Amino acid sequence: MAGRRERALEAVRATGADALLAANPSTVAWLTGFADDLEWGPSPFALSPLALLTADGPPVLVVSEDWSEAAAATGCEVSSYRGFTVEPLDTVRGATRALVDAVGGRRVATEAGALPTALAAAVDWVDVGTALARVQAVKDEDEIVLIRGAIALCDAGQAETRARADVGVTELELWSAMRLAVEAEAGARTPIVADLVAGPRTGETGGAPGNRRIEDGDLVLVDLVPRRNGYWGDCCATFAVGEPSANAVEHHRRACERLERLLEAVRPGVVAGDLDALARNGLDYPHHTGHGLGTGWHEEPRIVPGSATVLEEGMVVAFEPGSYREGEGVRVEQVVLVTADGCEILSGHDLAL
Amino acid sequence: MAGRRERALEAVRATGADALLAANPSTVAWLTGFADDLEWGPSPFALSPLALLTADGPPVLVVSEDWSEAAAATGCEVSSYRGFTVEPLDTVRGATRALVDAVGGRRVATEAGALPTALAAAVDWVDVGTALARVQAVKDEDEIVLIRGAIALCDAGQAETRARADVGVTELELWSAMRLAVEAEAGARTPIVADLVAGPRTGETGGAPGNRRIEDGDLVLVDLVPRRNGYWGDCCATFAVGEPSANAVEHHRRACERLERLLEAVRPGVVAGDLDALARNGLDYPHHTGHGLGTGWHEEPRIVPGSATVLEEGMVVAFEPGSYREGEGVRVEQVVLVTADGCEILSGHDLAL
Repeated sequence: MAGRRERALEAVRATGADALLAANPSTVAWLTGFADDLEWGPSPFALSPLALLTADGPPVLVVSEDWSEAAAATGCEVSSYRGFTVEPLDTVRGATRALVDAVGGRRVATEAGALPTALAAAVDWVDVGTALARVQAVKDEDEIVLIRGAIALCDAGQAETRARADVGVTELELWSAMRLAVEAEAGARTPIVADLVAGPRTGETGGAPGNRRIEDGDLVLVDLVPRRNGYWGDCCATFAVGEPSANAVEHHRRACERLERLLEAVRPGVVAGDLDALARNGLDYPHHTGHGLGTGWHEEPRIVPGSATVLEEGMVVAFEPGSYREGEGVRVEQVVLVTADGCEILSGHDLAL
Repeated sequence: MAGRRERALEAVRATGADALLAANPSTVAWLTGFADDLEWGPSPFALSPLALLTADGPPVLVVSEDWSEAAAATGCEVSSYRGFTVEPLDTVRGATRALVDAVGGRRVATEAGALPTALAAAVDWVDVGTALARVQAVKDEDEIVLIRGAIALCDAGQAETRARADVGVTELELWSAMRLAVEAEAGARTPIVADLVAGPRTGETGGAPGNRRIEDGDLVLVDLVPRRNGYWGDCCATFAVGEPSANAVEHHRRACERLERLLEAVRPGVVAGDLDALARNGLDYPHHTGHGLGTGWHEEPRIVPGSATVLEEGMVVAFEPGSYREGEGVRVEQVVLVTADGCEILSGHDLAL
């Protein structure tokens, strides 16, 4: 199969444009390997990175000078503008000039839901819409290597959470221990989102950690989504501190049984909506059964009711059936790579109650 | 002085528009108190929040349904669209409809460097440019309360860093301990950015923490920028683990002396560029002398060479002179509120070497 840049250009040609201007940071990371910081939020010194893909060579990253070195290290061309400065700020104008230089009069297909209108006004564009979503679902070999790296962080975080959970420990203390294990493994600060809840909040499917202390018999639901080198991992486990209730044991049995059935059923040609029905039958979890992941944490194939998306070899899918009721809930999640005749489980964390 | 919404509308009227459409998340937070998550990055279920301000009532927040409750809790009106879903995704179209409903045919002044072009195409807009930057520099009373809250997190983080720093501890371990102290104080996960470096990297002004272990005699430079309820705090201290070098002592003496002189000079009517010159004279730090902060981590008044900005009562300014040379560096930073006849120091952390 053609590589992702080639597939992206095919999708672009269908719009009548001859180049792709990626404006969503996850699309930029997907095309170039360049991932921006998240926790800073918007900066007065830079706009979000952009990437221009043409048929003529490597993509061009349009970034502030502060990112030039990191951008060049990806092997892409760089069109930059002034970044951090003690001079007057003129970031939008600088970014516009750098973009116009890169585009060079081409008609571009862009992500109109992400490209700032001040930049859009300076180029000839058409909306690429959702055409890239399907193209992104099948991963290239180098992407699978990066996803394995992100899942190694998931495994480290899950192991540390399980080892440290104890009566009297707060959710935030547990989150902190988990985060240190992940960041030490990565050797760098790491964005990590999603859930760490103990006790009754497990019945609400999850949430952010707080100062609540774990009590004897609590379930702890941990859904970790760390980003490494631009690619997101994902994983969930739910375990008991002390003796679980009969209710919890039953939740866990049901969730694990559905996950097992899903993994048995996954292969190229299977329809996403059918997988959803298989797992959801008789359970009433208020979320998807699964989703793709890559430079975005929720991509195609979405495993949701009625989806006609057909699974293909090379897709990476997180499956996460859950069972929640009466103030307790269990969710288990593993990420798989769809192979020629089934799937390979990429996740290595413990799912035991 | 008029409140910030009134001042914003004045700036908007000068553009010929009769309403403000805030598109930068920090401007949205400033107008409404609604702050979005950062660490998730862009979502397939939502666009960045928008806020519409008219003369007729409270602002209208344009957000996904997932944020409706939090948005309504700010006292603003809410125009929402479908968020997290197992249905097909159509986020851009949903957000566009919710925006058009809120705008109701008005001509809006907007932040064209932030508003996605797909949304801009659906409304009659003019660029408000940088007109809001000056309006945002003077803080309202309720904003100062929120900034004090963010600086309380700075103080907690600095105290924990100083207490835990020791030979053999890694930068990431120290960051983790700091972060837990901050999040426990806040009772919630908290975005925190900027610097924690030990040893030679202090000479490079800072950087993100890594797996390097602290050695005897190292300087530790800690510049913490946490966000609480949408408002950023800021603080820097540099201290030695063990006996500091004579070079480090001299760096520290110089940096503290300049900070002291700055705080003596601050009062309404003083020109930002003059403050910069006062602090920079004879030192050669490669960054600003200071900056405003609020819902953005770097705002007016920027304390930079040649700035003609005049300080006013109610501005909040972080001052952070530094001295770096020969593989060691020291930066000290305090945040002040400009008062009628000088300033009040808001920061409470220890600046000792």
